[in-house]
Amino acid sequence: MTFELKILGSASATPTAGRHPTAQVLTVGAINYLIDCGEGTQWRMLEHRVRPHHLRAIFISHLHGDHYFGLFGLLGTMHLQGRTQPLRIVGPPGLDEVLVTQARVSGMQLGFAMEFTAVDTEAHAVVYEDERLVVSSLPMRHRIPCAGYLFAEQPRRANLLKEQLPDGLSPAQLARLAQGEDLEADEQQPGLRHADVAGPAPTPRRYAFFSDTLYTPALADLIRGADLLYHEATFLDEMKERAAQTHHSTARQAAQLAQAAGVQRLLLGHFSSRYKALEPLLDEGRQVFPNAELALEGLVVSL
Amino acid sequence: MTFELKILGSASATPTAGRHPTAQVLTVGAINYLIDCGEGTQWRMLEHRVRPHHLRAIFISHLHGDHYFGLFGLLGTMHLQGRTQPLRIVGPPGLDEVLVTQARVSGMQLGFAMEFTAVDTEAHAVVYEDERLVVSSLPMRHRIPCAGYLFAEQPRRANLLKEQLPDGLSPAQLARLAQGEDLEADEQQPGLRHADVAGPAPTPRRYAFFSDTLYTPALADLIRGADLLYHEATFLDEMKERAAQTHHSTARQAAQLAQAAGVQRLLLGHFSSRYKALEPLLDEGRQVFPNAELALEGLVVSL
Repeated sequence: MTFELKILGSASATPTAGRHPTAQVLTVGAINYLIDCGEGTQWRMLEHRVRPHHLRAIFISHLHGDHYFGLFGLLGTMHLQGRTQPLRIVGPPGLDEVLVTQARVSGMQLGFAMEFTAVDTEAHAVVYEDERLVVSSLPMRHRIPCAGYLFAEQPRRANLLKEQLPDGLSPAQLARLAQGEDLEADEQQPGLRHADVAGPAPTPRRYAFFSDTLYTPALADLIRGADLLYHEATFLDEMKERAAQTHHSTARQAAQLAQAAGVQRLLLGHFSSRYKALEPLLDEGRQVFPNAELALEGLVVSL
Repeated sequence: MTFELKILGSASATPTAGRHPTAQVLTVGAINYLIDCGEGTQWRMLEHRVRPHHLRAIFISHLHGDHYFGLFGLLGTMHLQGRTQPLRIVGPPGLDEVLVTQARVSGMQLGFAMEFTAVDTEAHAVVYEDERLVVSSLPMRHRIPCAGYLFAEQPRRANLLKEQLPDGLSPAQLARLAQGEDLEADEQQPGLRHADVAGPAPTPRRYAFFSDTLYTPALADLIRGADLLYHEATFLDEMKERAAQTHHSTARQAAQLAQAAGVQRLLLGHFSSRYKALEPLLDEGRQVFPNAELALEGLVVSL
């Protein structure tokens, strides 16, 4: 099953030609989840062929504009496109008030229900669950309440191992085994345990999203061994005082967190507009954690 | 003195690749005024070299998202860029409530004052005035309260005619004449009336902005003889029933209004995303009013 992250934007707040603010799409199976929604995200979705009505839920980290000012327009577009299925929006308290105020003054009556989950940004707790995903909040430390998110696949069933299957099983029996059931012994044949004909269950894949945050080493414990970490890297380490003042991180700090958490891969993003070239951020990160990449717009990471 | 309109976007609500929602910049002298501010306007400003801190005032027609969802981000950027001069925002009631709510939940304390003028969208009345411009509201007819705007230059002084000036005037006397004053007779010379040495005063230039509106012929009286009219032309005339239902206009209706008002030039805009090619809208408009153009992004009209 697909478990894929697509970067739609990874700039920080100051608009920069050719860069766009934070937005990412996580695709699990054929279902899309949007993570942050900076201004212009709906045009990035057009460009990168992400269809708004395939979005099941939207996760907003915090209420600085470069992380959510594209949300209003996207909701309006979903309405214009005739969406009727409910949309789950997960974000800090206050987001619902802004959405309701906007809708009221615009005289906008959406054709679909918005179901809002207010996240406790101080807690590590499950904030969303469906048949594919369990999402937990991660308490970021920023100037205003801010949540990171850990997207964990639901446990997957082990695949049957063809070479372990006896001959003569009926399609119905095969289907039951594939569903994880055991076959009882009967007059025709002996019993068969699912565990004896299946491989090990695949480890659920996990993606951790950290934006925006002061470097907070204690968070490593919450995402230990994740397949992928996106960590904001607004500055180079030579500006770590500025990073601390503004509650942001440096590329080196992002890499230190990746290393401490023992994740498989690291994406760096949320680049300050002061960096015309981004390679120095990448180089700095790779010195600590070699399996690092820049979260450039259009990048697709399949896990 | 410059009196120039620059188009930053002229699409209607559905996002379309390569087109952007309504935003225009009127430049009078070195001062910029922004007219509507659809999502992404600050990136269009970057692209077309309009500097946010040169904006003196922003005029919003109505609270459909494609006309104001870029405003929040632009205000945040002005703040990040260190703006301290007050900013006048003119728009329908409710806009201030949205701005205040957003600022509160974002923990955003702008470094400059926002001075809000609530427009009575049913009235034709002066809503803004400075040393360059007088702006009046125009009562559009749309699904929600909506104002058009008439931007009229303040009366300009007549230029002195060099060939009418007697020899021997001192720089101080010339300056007084240029300011419109008469020179009294004294021992050295006879008096000199400003009117005798100056040409006719230039007619103040006027730009009328009509978006979004049902075709409303009665509005022609309010903009008679304007130098330039921008009129929304969401549809071709074959869709005039749809235009009426949604309180929009067709290209033919826009041109009829331009003709009835006796304006000099017409710009058509706010094109529905259904029109991949825009020439048919232009052709239809020109059949009624030949001096029509499409308000394409990047277009500059100097009056």
